[in-house]
Amino acid sequence: MWHTTDLTLRPYPRGFHLITREVVAALPELASVRVGLLHVFIRHTSASLTLSENASPDVRRDFERYFNQAVPDGWKGYEHTLEGDDDMPAHIKAALLGNSLTLPVRGGRPRLGTWQGVYLCEHRDRGGARTLTLTLQGEQGA
Amino acid sequence: MWHTTDLTLRPYPRGFHLITREVVAALPELASVRVGLLHVFIRHTSASLTLSENASPDVRRDFERYFNQAVPDGWKGYEHTLEGDDDMPAHIKAALLGNSLTLPVRGGRPRLGTWQGVYLCEHRDRGGARTLTLTLQGEQGA
Amino acid sequence: MWHTTDLTLRPYPRGFHLITREVVAALPELASVRVGLLHVFIRHTSASLTLSENASPDVRRDFERYFNQAVPDGWKGYEHTLEGDDDMPAHIKAALLGNSLTLPVRGGRPRLGTWQGVYLCEHRDRGGARTLTLTLQGEQGA
Repeated sequence: MWHTTDLTLRPYPRGFHLITREVVAALPELASVRVGLLHVFIRHTSASLTLSENASPDVRRDFERYFNQAVPDGWKGYEHTLEGDDDMPAHIKAALLGNSLTLPVRGGRPRLGTWQGVYLCEHRDRGGARTLTLTLQGEQGA
Repeated sequence: MWHTTDLTLRPYPRGFHLITREVVAALPELASVRVGLLHVFIRHTSASLTLSENASPDVRRDFERYFNQAVPDGWKGYEHTLEGDDDMPAHIKAALLGNSLTLPVRGGRPRLGTWQGVYLCEHRDRGGARTLTLTLQGEQGA
Repeated sequence: MWHTTDLTLRPYPRGFHLITREVVAALPELASVRVGLLHVFIRHTSASLTLSENASPDVRRDFERYFNQAVPDGWKGYEHTLEGDDDMPAHIKAALLGNSLTLPVRGGRPRLGTWQGVYLCEHRDRGGARTLTLTLQGEQGA
């Protein structure tokens, strides 16, 4: 079986945000998948997706601080500055973290580790609402 | 349906290059896919693939400059220097950016965001011709 | 065909380790796949997976040295320090390198480049035994 849908998230502020629940809630079809894969794709070049620790909000703040120093806004090496100081670093952070996740699905749900959650990484000051394309495939059965 | 082919690109100079058109042109089979996934894999360890902004060439030059300062040629921490100053940094950049992309396919084409393009990231001074393994799967239909 | 299994690796010390053989050995089902994809997923947030050079052990030591200076233990910017100096950098390194790999399969084996091997990247001092979820799909045939 194949199923695809788009999911537009509410606008998130710059930073790292847990969105596992929103993704799973958008796919009631997950329940019927015995074994498969879920592909989560972000249709943007200045926001990204990763998996990381799903418990402590300070981990997500540390991610934001780390990436801001590793890929600083307004670095003098950038030529592409017309769209703002946060634009070029957003493209680079997005490339470092990645534009998609592929998650194993078993027994009707994503088979994540206990501590793994899906992060939306918003790299712009005002990124607006981001859209994900979700693609679910697999074998159906109890 | 499953379809697979290898695509050998022309040699590109060190830097970041848009190759969306080459990839799509190598897969006329895309047209028949109603919903599916396209996996693009690079069979090398010193060049990589990412998705980013497809309009301004200065974005791609900024990528090259950023990664050259983040992962400098000839860093004194490297032991593996026999193959040249650009070899070990090429492996690290490739691991940071990634060796494959999975793109959603809908209605006969990759469902990319408006600003997304496929980048070949060539990290060697003389990388030569790089080969991609393309794997297309999905459900056929209008 | 779909096949899924979990593979628990022996504990590895902090650093980068070649595990291609362990992964392939866990999947005798590979032999029957004419064309397909193998998804390798790590169920943890402080260890990661990448593909890189499979020959020289010094490359893997250089990876460890590079990532230790790029994402230093005990950086003063971290808030999340309760679980040790190596915890927060482990989450960040894991996000940079990635939690999964998708490998093309053709003619009964992963179609890797000559120099490509699967790396387990262990970012904790005492990470323990890590578990991978392997998902194989494809078309069967000689």
